[in-house]
Amino acid sequence: MSNERRMGIGLLGLGTVGSGVVQMLADASERLERLSGAQAEIKRILVRDRAKERQVVVPPHLLTQEMRDILEDPEIHVVIEVMGGLERTHEYVRQSLAHGKHVITANKDLIAVHGAELQALAAHHGVALSYEAAVGGAVPIIRALQQSFAGDEIEEIMGIVNGTTNYILSKMTAEEAPYEEVLAEAQRLGYAEADPHADVSGLDAARKMAILATLAFGEPVALSDVAVQGIEEVTHADILLANGNKQVIKLIGRARRTADGLEVSVAPTALPATHPLAGVHDVFNAVYVYGKACGEAMFYGRGAGMMPTASAVIADLLAILRSTQVEQQSIVAGGVH
Amino acid sequence: MSNERRMGIGLLGLGTVGSGVVQMLADASERLERLSGAQAEIKRILVRDRAKERQVVVPPHLLTQEMRDILEDPEIHVVIEVMGGLERTHEYVRQSLAHGKHVITANKDLIAVHGAELQALAAHHGVALSYEAAVGGAVPIIRALQQSFAGDEIEEIMGIVNGTTNYILSKMTAEEAPYEEVLAEAQRLGYAEADPHADVSGLDAARKMAILATLAFGEPVALSDVAVQGIEEVTHADILLANGNKQVIKLIGRARRTADGLEVSVAPTALPATHPLAGVHDVFNAVYVYGKACGEAMFYGRGAGMMPTASAVIADLLAILRSTQVEQQSIVAGGVH
Repeated sequence: MSNERRMGIGLLGLGTVGSGVVQMLADASERLERLSGAQAEIKRILVRDRAKERQVVVPPHLLTQEMRDILEDPEIHVVIEVMGGLERTHEYVRQSLAHGKHVITANKDLIAVHGAELQALAAHHGVALSYEAAVGGAVPIIRALQQSFAGDEIEEIMGIVNGTTNYILSKMTAEEAPYEEVLAEAQRLGYAEADPHADVSGLDAARKMAILATLAFGEPVALSDVAVQGIEEVTHADILLANGNKQVIKLIGRARRTADGLEVSVAPTALPATHPLAGVHDVFNAVYVYGKACGEAMFYGRGAGMMPTASAVIADLLAILRSTQVEQQSIVAGGVH
Repeated sequence: MSNERRMGIGLLGLGTVGSGVVQMLADASERLERLSGAQAEIKRILVRDRAKERQVVVPPHLLTQEMRDILEDPEIHVVIEVMGGLERTHEYVRQSLAHGKHVITANKDLIAVHGAELQALAAHHGVALSYEAAVGGAVPIIRALQQSFAGDEIEEIMGIVNGTTNYILSKMTAEEAPYEEVLAEAQRLGYAEADPHADVSGLDAARKMAILATLAFGEPVALSDVAVQGIEEVTHADILLANGNKQVIKLIGRARRTADGLEVSVAPTALPATHPLAGVHDVFNAVYVYGKACGEAMFYGRGAGMMPTASAVIADLLAILRSTQVEQQSIVAGGVH
């Protein structure tokens, strides 16, 4: 095996997360090479508008508006999708897998809706489809469910998986302020979108719970299987009442086995103040897992943001760099058997 | 590749954790096979006394008092070491690796003292040395540092990594009881050993911090590099004073980069009551990680106990079963190239 193995990357999208990936790859390339024996290098970046000003400086010749420049480049082994959206992205990810390229995506909508199909396509072409960044940002819950808890029997997972709503509920609790006022403040600070519907309705959390439940219980859970209630109806009186009972209201995603099968929901929930999730404030995310053997476990961290999300993408990239090393070494080993 | 790939296991020790491994393997064997394509089966169990009564029922012919029965069995591919101790165990693990067997160990003393040498030996023989269970029981912090945070630049880790001392400090705080009284209660409940020295002196935590610091910062940290202070001197007055200042006293293991190099310590520490580690009570463990890109992250769970520790061993086993699948598939693939 060559000691100068190069793995080319095609990046789809150069928004906030894409810029974070570019920056972190520049910072971490030596570390990644030391850990995996491979040099990872961005070969092409797909953008809508080559002329637009960017958050990071990249050599202009890397930018392209043509997906085929990435698909047809044999030196691109890994496609990192951080452009968001659903239909065009679905097509690009399908094409990338079909061209034998590993895919890393931060796109929860894509995985929640098309995950099973894309996973099957990846397996068929012998490549990886990785999506640690799609749920919980820097919180490595996807890998934990795929690896650390996969041999255990998960009985329940509960998660605070939407930072916007957790910020709003935290502020409503700490500052005794009404919903509309806190939402407006969150929008001013960039923690909530101009159209906050996907967050406050619970839809974003429901997509993430569908992904987590699929992994935790080993059976496909669709978005339509999730009973969803948002935080729009949570009043200041609800919060005061809960606090008086030593409870804290959180938007909780929950998935558990019941006598009637799998039950997956997202709803404002009054947790005892002593519950590990009750202390998760502001934009932080956390996922609580209850397993038959492991007992209670919890993962906590930054659920969004440029660098936390990029760090999850880079963790997926490192896993791919390492696995291709094993494959190449084994092929060499196989040759002498 | 055969669909009936079998991976034989040699188990060293059949105490509490060993019994948990036997039980969990019985429960999880179908799940492990579905996830890895391999049947894992215990072929031999090394015990000191074959005639002793056991917590689990195992076929008597599996029990042996001779290590060579495991070393010389070509059908044993993985050795799981849960016998504890240092010198004899060190020899057995060395021999197992030298015989080309993967090793999984729950032995923090062994890894803290001989980890670097054993890791090099494992690499030389092309086998895995895995020790998720050695730190934090069911808390998957080893894998997180090796994989999820390995591409990031870790700036600091802080951990509550000893359940006995966390139990004692939690009870001293909650029940306003003196150290000696709570220690006696912990011994009655089995949370502290008859000789509690290794726990209350901070030595056990120091061993675990040496392991975590080595992984987090990518340079070897020996036990002697850790500045250690235990909880024996923590008085009721200290705890009251801290509480009055909205602080909580915890035995905190800490590792961070400073201008003078790596600084690793274990000491009773007054944390702000709002710190994520301040809410970790009783026998629970937690490790807090601060990374340049990922920001704050925390992992929380059961740091000891029969089934939580077994669950970490099984997670390591699953990783080995999967990696050998990749190798075998790749060898087949390599053969036709």
